[in-house]
Amino acid sequence: MRIINHICDMQRWSEAQRVAGKKIAFVPTMGYLHEGHLSLVLKGKKQGDVVVVSIFVNPMQFNQQSDFDKYPRKDEQDRRMLEEVGTDVLFYPTAPEIYPEGFQTAVEVSKVADPLCGAFRPEHFRGVATVVAKLFNIVKPHVAVFGQKDFQQCVVIQQMVKDLNFDLEILPMPTIRESDGLAMSSRNARLSPAERHTSLSIARALNHAQEMVTEGERRAEIILKTVQEILTREGGVRVEYASLCHPETLEEVTQLSGPTLLAIAAWVGEVRLIDNRVLQ
Amino acid sequence: MRIINHICDMQRWSEAQRVAGKKIAFVPTMGYLHEGHLSLVLKGKKQGDVVVVSIFVNPMQFNQQSDFDKYPRKDEQDRRMLEEVGTDVLFYPTAPEIYPEGFQTAVEVSKVADPLCGAFRPEHFRGVATVVAKLFNIVKPHVAVFGQKDFQQCVVIQQMVKDLNFDLEILPMPTIRESDGLAMSSRNARLSPAERHTSLSIARALNHAQEMVTEGERRAEIILKTVQEILTREGGVRVEYASLCHPETLEEVTQLSGPTLLAIAAWVGEVRLIDNRVLQ
Repeated sequence: MRIINHICDMQRWSEAQRVAGKKIAFVPTMGYLHEGHLSLVLKGKKQGDVVVVSIFVNPMQFNQQSDFDKYPRKDEQDRRMLEEVGTDVLFYPTAPEIYPEGFQTAVEVSKVADPLCGAFRPEHFRGVATVVAKLFNIVKPHVAVFGQKDFQQCVVIQQMVKDLNFDLEILPMPTIRESDGLAMSSRNARLSPAERHTSLSIARALNHAQEMVTEGERRAEIILKTVQEILTREGGVRVEYASLCHPETLEEVTQLSGPTLLAIAAWVGEVRLIDNRVLQ
Repeated sequence: MRIINHICDMQRWSEAQRVAGKKIAFVPTMGYLHEGHLSLVLKGKKQGDVVVVSIFVNPMQFNQQSDFDKYPRKDEQDRRMLEEVGTDVLFYPTAPEIYPEGFQTAVEVSKVADPLCGAFRPEHFRGVATVVAKLFNIVKPHVAVFGQKDFQQCVVIQQMVKDLNFDLEILPMPTIRESDGLAMSSRNARLSPAERHTSLSIARALNHAQEMVTEGERRAEIILKTVQEILTREGGVRVEYASLCHPETLEEVTQLSGPTLLAIAAWVGEVRLIDNRVLQ
């Protein structure tokens, strides 16, 4: 596995691949990798001739300095894991390489970035869209793979790609879960054993909502009331939002007709967790 | 000359050129072409193996609907002119092709877009940066040629290219002038003969400022006072701004030391004209 730190080297490598007719798959990450990330890399390997993974904890998408500071990092292990799954290139830039002095440009997606996480983390998706636009111009992929655990992020990126005419395909991939149902996330590492147990209520709430829909419930209000109840029943969970919305426009729905996104963000102790399920 | 109307066709053409090792030069325009534009196309022909010109009057960069409506258009003549100078491809999309329903993304450059025209045309450079980002992703040029008559636009685009890591080179080219000194502009067509004469005071003011600097004047205030005087002496000119600033940061200067941009925007009748000169 080749490690590339500089933007110009990455661009040169990618351009050479493209001119040679190779298809580049790209998986952008913030490191502290888990099986969820690796599933994206493996998908990338299937889709492309070469696969590039980036690790960059993007300061621009954190609205709290403390969350950025606490974001877990374990570079050595990340590298081993990426090597094991056959990553061709790890793009691993420094923050000043990505945001040099005088940096002053932002990519802003409006509507789909406004609700859900966008309502609670102002500027978050502005940071995400900007860094992903940069990474696309640096890595020049034909296809980029994103995890649907960050469902809204996928929607925002897809909107940006469409609106700014990036000539590439976005592949959203299903969330990978622990055996007990908890969605894999780098942030899980910050949960105490008790919190780890408490956080299971999120997956439980998602599953129960699906059961309600299967049994015929269509009223958003009723489903969300039950979801809130499951989340808060045992204590220790502070719900930031639980929302039912259209999976493409992310507009809230009051009555379910067709696939509907149930998205949840909740604090367990000091850790903010998100999860979602498209109810069928 | 090939005319391409659709984004996907343009991307496919450009990708094929790149894979074939051809260097693509690109000149984005809003049509109603004059010698200034043609000088950019000729520069593009020198710099690239193939040259693409786009004609698109971008609604997003007009802050007044009336200015957009009045923007002159003459498609047939534009085509003939482009053909004559050896343009390879004219990219000529419709507005709904560029801004389909649901479009909601913008590229925003902050600091360098704030003064000068940015202060008087809110959202203008947001529209410029967004459409140029789109065009870069559609045309995929190795080099893009811009005229320095729109000096601030060049600076904004260069900042965007740097910040978003577009892997291409921006070539700013000198302003082309009529024999009497008036900077060529599509908007000149809207001047009456009397206004056409009046508008010469702009070039006169720029030249006089250079003379003052050559003779040793370094105080911005003194130079600008004379510039205002020349502009308004004969009546018929309403100065929007006359500003001395750093040619890279566009920050105002009070004392000249090194090359300094003198930028002027002025209304002659119903027509807004801009011009500039880097004082040496």
